[in-house]
Amino acid sequence: MPIDEHSSDEADAFADDESGGETGTVYLVGSGPGNPDLLTVRASDLIDSADVVLHDKLPGPEILERIPVEKREDVGKRAGGERTSQSEINARLVELAEEGTDVVRLKGGDPFVFGRGGEEMQYLAEHGVDFEVVPGITSAVAAPAAADIPVTHRDHASSVSFVTGHEDPEKDESAVDWQALADTGGTIVVLMGVGKLPEYTAALRDAGMDA
Amino acid sequence: MPIDEHSSDEADAFADDESGGETGTVYLVGSGPGNPDLLTVRASDLIDSADVVLHDKLPGPEILERIPVEKREDVGKRAGGERTSQSEINARLVELAEEGTDVVRLKGGDPFVFGRGGEEMQYLAEHGVDFEVVPGITSAVAAPAAADIPVTHRDHASSVSFVTGHEDPEKDESAVDWQALADTGGTIVVLMGVGKLPEYTAALRDAGMDA
Repeated sequence: MPIDEHSSDEADAFADDESGGETGTVYLVGSGPGNPDLLTVRASDLIDSADVVLHDKLPGPEILERIPVEKREDVGKRAGGERTSQSEINARLVELAEEGTDVVRLKGGDPFVFGRGGEEMQYLAEHGVDFEVVPGITSAVAAPAAADIPVTHRDHASSVSFVTGHEDPEKDESAVDWQALADTGGTIVVLMGVGKLPEYTAALRDAGMDA
Repeated sequence: MPIDEHSSDEADAFADDESGGETGTVYLVGSGPGNPDLLTVRASDLIDSADVVLHDKLPGPEILERIPVEKREDVGKRAGGERTSQSEINARLVELAEEGTDVVRLKGGDPFVFGRGGEEMQYLAEHGVDFEVVPGITSAVAAPAAADIPVTHRDHASSVSFVTGHEDPEKDESAVDWQALADTGGTIVVLMGVGKLPEYTAALRDAGMDA
């Protein structure tokens, strides 16, 4: 699929053509916990066939190193060192699709489990861009599993809750109710929570959980 | 390295042999939501290389039909029509491994998200059988995703809770605290919950959630 940068209005007119030959599709793809063998077959195929793979560091080096450098576009964000804003990423996805590019937006874990895939999907839909969501194995399940820890067990846990440890910093107050989470009696998995781990463990102890 | 328990000392000597030819390994493999493309690369490879695939109906017809009939062993259980008990399945896994068979125990979704993989793993460990857990995409994430519904969203849900709708029938009372789940303010996904859907929705309404 040819890439036509900064397309003109004429190209945009083509983009709306029924043939669908002119606009690309954006694939919001979960890469799983980082092991290339834990990519889905679909994710693996799409990475191979995509024109461009937009990614940050979260898919991990083993997966990223397998993608030809010429089709990688790093829009990495790291806690504390913001590099590309979400709105810039959204705009870039639409731009690429309108240029006729098939884009894989590769995200660590699952795009819909704290992956901001919901926001990207919404933006694409609002801009009339074709998209497909390809789920990935969330680290919330895979990380404990790698240590042979089941997140549920018939005898011990009838529910499991995944909580973001990295809420929108612009929120006035946290939407996370640690008391309610503790009261569920189920397993609690906090994602991206290392930065605030002492706060969260203190909140859960206050909520009556064993240390 | 294969481990062989319940075996004579002589067999143990074989089991520890570098060739590893005497005992098999049990792979507890999640098959994801049913689409063969959403198998992981690892799951797909293990299904190809296994001597026996022990499965129930949950992986779904599309995946099961791709497995050669001669290596499929159906230990299916269906709600209301129990066919093979969990203890029979556990015993069969150990038996096959001790016969030197490499077994894939194929489970719908993820083996550790209400998949009873934890129980099987425990049994295998207690019997000294080598095992590996291969996570799969849980339907708890994939089913909403198939309808373009993100289970979390930065603006709307800072947590997501997965709850079994199918607790151990021998439990005296449900361990599920619907009030606490509602109080989390996050997304709630009930798995295998169709049979008791009216009860659960009533419980959540009682807990103050919108209908």
